[in-house]
Amino acid sequence: MAQAASIQRLLSELERLPGIGPKSAQRIMYWLLNNEPVESQRLAEALVEVSETVRFCERCFNYAEDTLCPLCSAADRGHRNAVQICVVSEPRDIVAIERTNEFNGVYHVLGGAISPLDGIGPGDLHVRELLERLADNSMEEVVLATNPNVEGETTAVYLARLIKPLGIKCTRLASGLPVGGDLEFADEVTLGRAIESRVEL
Amino acid sequence: MAQAASIQRLLSELERLPGIGPKSAQRIMYWLLNNEPVESQRLAEALVEVSETVRFCERCFNYAEDTLCPLCSAADRGHRNAVQICVVSEPRDIVAIERTNEFNGVYHVLGGAISPLDGIGPGDLHVRELLERLADNSMEEVVLATNPNVEGETTAVYLARLIKPLGIKCTRLASGLPVGGDLEFADEVTLGRAIESRVEL
Repeated sequence: MAQAASIQRLLSELERLPGIGPKSAQRIMYWLLNNEPVESQRLAEALVEVSETVRFCERCFNYAEDTLCPLCSAADRGHRNAVQICVVSEPRDIVAIERTNEFNGVYHVLGGAISPLDGIGPGDLHVRELLERLADNSMEEVVLATNPNVEGETTAVYLARLIKPLGIKCTRLASGLPVGGDLEFADEVTLGRAIESRVEL
Repeated sequence: MAQAASIQRLLSELERLPGIGPKSAQRIMYWLLNNEPVESQRLAEALVEVSETVRFCERCFNYAEDTLCPLCSAADRGHRNAVQICVVSEPRDIVAIERTNEFNGVYHVLGGAISPLDGIGPGDLHVRELLERLADNSMEEVVLATNPNVEGETTAVYLARLIKPLGIKCTRLASGLPVGGDLEFADEVTLGRAIESRVEL
């Protein structure tokens, strides 16, 4: 036992974090010990604050500090185009889409994707709540922005079948070559999609 | 502002840690949000505990929770060989040496190494305290275990010049090929040292 008990405890807590091994945990701990104690305390306060205040938005299931998330509140104040709704799997997908500045509607987080192998069916996702939001017929377009993998595609197809009969336009994110990528390194499925969905200039 | 303020704050606190970039910070945060709140709180408690309880050992300057570190306390209870003292730069070096199970004496942490370029001289290190510990002539051997780089070597040579006149044996960690390494990949300085210090079988 070359180290104090509290150091051992912090080390094992740090090692539990994803992507942090014993070496990284040690590096972070020595950094904290070499800094002012206020540094560790600020991180601790931020952790406690998140664990105490963050919950799910009652409307869209994004992370929120109040009943509604910042985006739903903005929509209620008329700052967002509330007739377009973007359906995503996880709250982190909202962050990625917001970063593009290409979408100014509202969101709905499913909390996962349909995956029979993992035993996740439509009943485990926030599908019922999505349909409730679409029920008043004020929505003009549903953008199905689930991931472009098997589970995401399955979920998008499933949702499109439910939503189209309501007379609401359903769209899906385009598949194709990533911008800045090299044609020769594109996998055949992506390249095939890019050819299939080619655009007239 | 797609994210709640407390999430933004935790993200920026996590990004301050060494080796944690924006992507890792986001990964850790989503992991914490997907887990029970008690998970974040346990980490927060460990951080506060370390920042409040960890200080320097009054005798050897290792990290300690009490006046003395676990190793100095063990020495006082007679569990360690208090006539051999190992001098290291940082507390983390003690952990590395303890892991080898090859040394059972006591330690002294200098808190750095002599580095004129960085403006660190002997007066900035715990050299005076080391000499005070050697003053009663009970010590039989001083192992100078500073790093095998320019600063560490300079520090070791400087200390040896001070300690040898006291009639105490001074030793230095052996330089040579790392065990499990490949001869062809060894740098010429290391290989040169290995030849110079070759051992008779």
